[in-house]
Amino acid sequence: MQQKIAAEFLGTFWLTFGGCGSAILSAAFPGMGIGFAGVALAFGLSVLTMSYAVGSISGAHFNPAITVGLWVGGRMPGLDVLPYIIAQVAGATVAAAILALIASGRPGFELGEFAANGYGALSPGQYSLLAALVVETVGTFFLVFIVMRVTTPGAAPGFAPIAVGLTLTLIHLVSIPVTNTSVNPARSTGTALFAGTDYLMQLWLFWLAPLAGGIVGAWVARGVRVTAK
Amino acid sequence: MQQKIAAEFLGTFWLTFGGCGSAILSAAFPGMGIGFAGVALAFGLSVLTMSYAVGSISGAHFNPAITVGLWVGGRMPGLDVLPYIIAQVAGATVAAAILALIASGRPGFELGEFAANGYGALSPGQYSLLAALVVETVGTFFLVFIVMRVTTPGAAPGFAPIAVGLTLTLIHLVSIPVTNTSVNPARSTGTALFAGTDYLMQLWLFWLAPLAGGIVGAWVARGVRVTAK
Amino acid sequence: MQQKIAAEFLGTFWLTFGGCGSAILSAAFPGMGIGFAGVALAFGLSVLTMSYAVGSISGAHFNPAITVGLWVGGRMPGLDVLPYIIAQVAGATVAAAILALIASGRPGFELGEFAANGYGALSPGQYSLLAALVVETVGTFFLVFIVMRVTTPGAAPGFAPIAVGLTLTLIHLVSIPVTNTSVNPARSTGTALFAGTDYLMQLWLFWLAPLAGGIVGAWVARGVRVTAK
Amino acid sequence: MQQKIAAEFLGTFWLTFGGCGSAILSAAFPGMGIGFAGVALAFGLSVLTMSYAVGSISGAHFNPAITVGLWVGGRMPGLDVLPYIIAQVAGATVAAAILALIASGRPGFELGEFAANGYGALSPGQYSLLAALVVETVGTFFLVFIVMRVTTPGAAPGFAPIAVGLTLTLIHLVSIPVTNTSVNPARSTGTALFAGTDYLMQLWLFWLAPLAGGIVGAWVARGVRVTAK
Repeated sequence: MQQKIAAEFLGTFWLTFGGCGSAILSAAFPGMGIGFAGVALAFGLSVLTMSYAVGSISGAHFNPAITVGLWVGGRMPGLDVLPYIIAQVAGATVAAAILALIASGRPGFELGEFAANGYGALSPGQYSLLAALVVETVGTFFLVFIVMRVTTPGAAPGFAPIAVGLTLTLIHLVSIPVTNTSVNPARSTGTALFAGTDYLMQLWLFWLAPLAGGIVGAWVARGVRVTAK
Repeated sequence: MQQKIAAEFLGTFWLTFGGCGSAILSAAFPGMGIGFAGVALAFGLSVLTMSYAVGSISGAHFNPAITVGLWVGGRMPGLDVLPYIIAQVAGATVAAAILALIASGRPGFELGEFAANGYGALSPGQYSLLAALVVETVGTFFLVFIVMRVTTPGAAPGFAPIAVGLTLTLIHLVSIPVTNTSVNPARSTGTALFAGTDYLMQLWLFWLAPLAGGIVGAWVARGVRVTAK
Repeated sequence: MQQKIAAEFLGTFWLTFGGCGSAILSAAFPGMGIGFAGVALAFGLSVLTMSYAVGSISGAHFNPAITVGLWVGGRMPGLDVLPYIIAQVAGATVAAAILALIASGRPGFELGEFAANGYGALSPGQYSLLAALVVETVGTFFLVFIVMRVTTPGAAPGFAPIAVGLTLTLIHLVSIPVTNTSVNPARSTGTALFAGTDYLMQLWLFWLAPLAGGIVGAWVARGVRVTAK
Repeated sequence: MQQKIAAEFLGTFWLTFGGCGSAILSAAFPGMGIGFAGVALAFGLSVLTMSYAVGSISGAHFNPAITVGLWVGGRMPGLDVLPYIIAQVAGATVAAAILALIASGRPGFELGEFAANGYGALSPGQYSLLAALVVETVGTFFLVFIVMRVTTPGAAPGFAPIAVGLTLTLIHLVSIPVTNTSVNPARSTGTALFAGTDYLMQLWLFWLAPLAGGIVGAWVARGVRVTAK
């Protein structure tokens, strides 16, 4: 169990450090910035790479919505859910702290949005609460549905990290303008802690929508599994 | 059969939500937009990821041109063709409706082209009807040819979703300026329904050219299969 | 043999249609263009996808420098070399013709450089003949070296198309500014035929350097293979 | 042993030629440049492609921090460490020399930063020494941790080059603005030799931080390996 906790901590650290770090440090660099597409790639690659590294230890969730979804889907014991989530939130928070340290090493630095998630006035494109709810729920539905399916016994071995990582990239390609893309309450919590009160007051949505979408996604995938063919 | 229909519905939803969603929401975001390259990546990743998830259930077509092509290629029973196509068009249409809901959550929103396909005045680069016909036919020819070949018995197992998904990315890298890239009548229908009458009147081309290209691609691939070595 | 010829024709058509097509149609589209990075991705994906499709038929060279290199490396019979090269040049030329047809469907179209390769005044960044010679020779050296190694008996099965395709992407990421990147005499010939006399007069370099680099790369890889461990 | 040295020389040449070459020649090309995202992709693809080519010969380190890390992690004999590092630095240096030759073939060429690594005034975003230390140490920690894990006996065979290469891409997506990204003392040495005295005087950091991060990453991964489950 200790190994699983460590794996989830390191993995969610890497997801936050890589994904949010690329958003904070590189996305808007004058003339050479990686933009939303580069950030989307970074989030996906963080999951792809650490899934190959520690997938055999913890299952490589790095995300409370996946952990809860897999529990609902009958893939992990209920007793593990809370320790997993604590490790994930801790990993994201420590990563955000280190990112704040690095980012502050730049002359004229201001913390700003710090890649935190938001809706309404805090949405990158000023999208409404409803738009945020829908895009986060649909995105996490597919994320957890795909996780469930590609880790089914009988799925092509070795390819799950590619499928799951690139699903996260795709979700970001669509939804960064709407919410900065969460689909992951741990990542949202880590950055909101540093972005300030306004973001913390919107944090509920980035727990509610991903958990709801993930639970439904797991439930649908479980139905497929039981009755297929 | 019910499982196959559900898989095709979800997969074509994901293709339209991911591909067209990235075009509508993220492509032209000021200063950070993902551009045509990001949209091309999104279309490909939608197919790559859902093919790993449901390929073993329905074959992961998500596209009437592939369904008809595989039927011509002797890979699926004729009785399944129509149900598949209905599920695909339904999935694309529901995805487009949800995208319209999300997109309308932005202040000052106008539906505009809505990532619909077009030629002439409705082509992103004002390309002619002939250019549109050629690029869509050639693109779908290769798409279906490659699908046929990488799902041949004996092909490297597990790699087909990568090959097919990235084929779709490549087709978009070439042809978005010409037609916004269809090669998929379901995706074209879903977006045209929301983009309006002008686009609906051009929809025939985005059924005709992909189906024609796909049929020829399957026929050529079938010849290869039968007589190779 | 007929199947091999058809595979090389189709594959080199796809490489030219996808790679050069993305350069001609999409690279510089105002505000949304895919730039050199998108073109680099397109070239790589054209090889990756068609290698999965027809690699088991012809070996998926799509490039005279690879064909000659593999012959020098002891991997293919000398009698096949000329038919392969003729099929490759034919495929690239037909693809270039279809691209010219599509591109001309745009109002105010001018053929321009047509993604042809060049040095000096015809180099995208006005690089000298020497710079062009060096970059093309080094690039093809590694391309053929990697092809030889990843198709060695004992190499990880199924991954060769990924390794070779992404090698081509990497080479383009480095060298498009210098020569528009050839490392492939067939692709250079196809586009030069449409770009005009100035480009045809520089075509010798894009046969000489890739063939020289490829031969040395194959020779080095052959040495590794024979004596490794 | 001679084969291993040659493999490390060629691989580190390719990493420097591909990664730094894309930065020097293509990153800032007016209107079409590949930006930091393209450079990040290039570094990753250089490792991905050559790992498939020579991984079975030398293990495909191409980086003194990986070599020292794997030695600490009990994966390679101490006697090989110094020869590996010498081959890596030599490969990077020869590649930098050839890049200087190519780059100088452009009218009005000035050597400039030459993709060298730096902090403070020599950082692309003027980040402090502390920020540079942290980002390089954390990045190499994860790089070597992931290398150790994906090459563990029992890891999914064939996928290690993808995981390691894309880890390098991710690290670059985050940290190019801070230090131009090293995590590889050989690559730093090769470019610093051409970028001049100012960069050479900062070179100590790009040996110290990667080696320290890599050693700790290997040590943590070793603990996981011994006690997992």
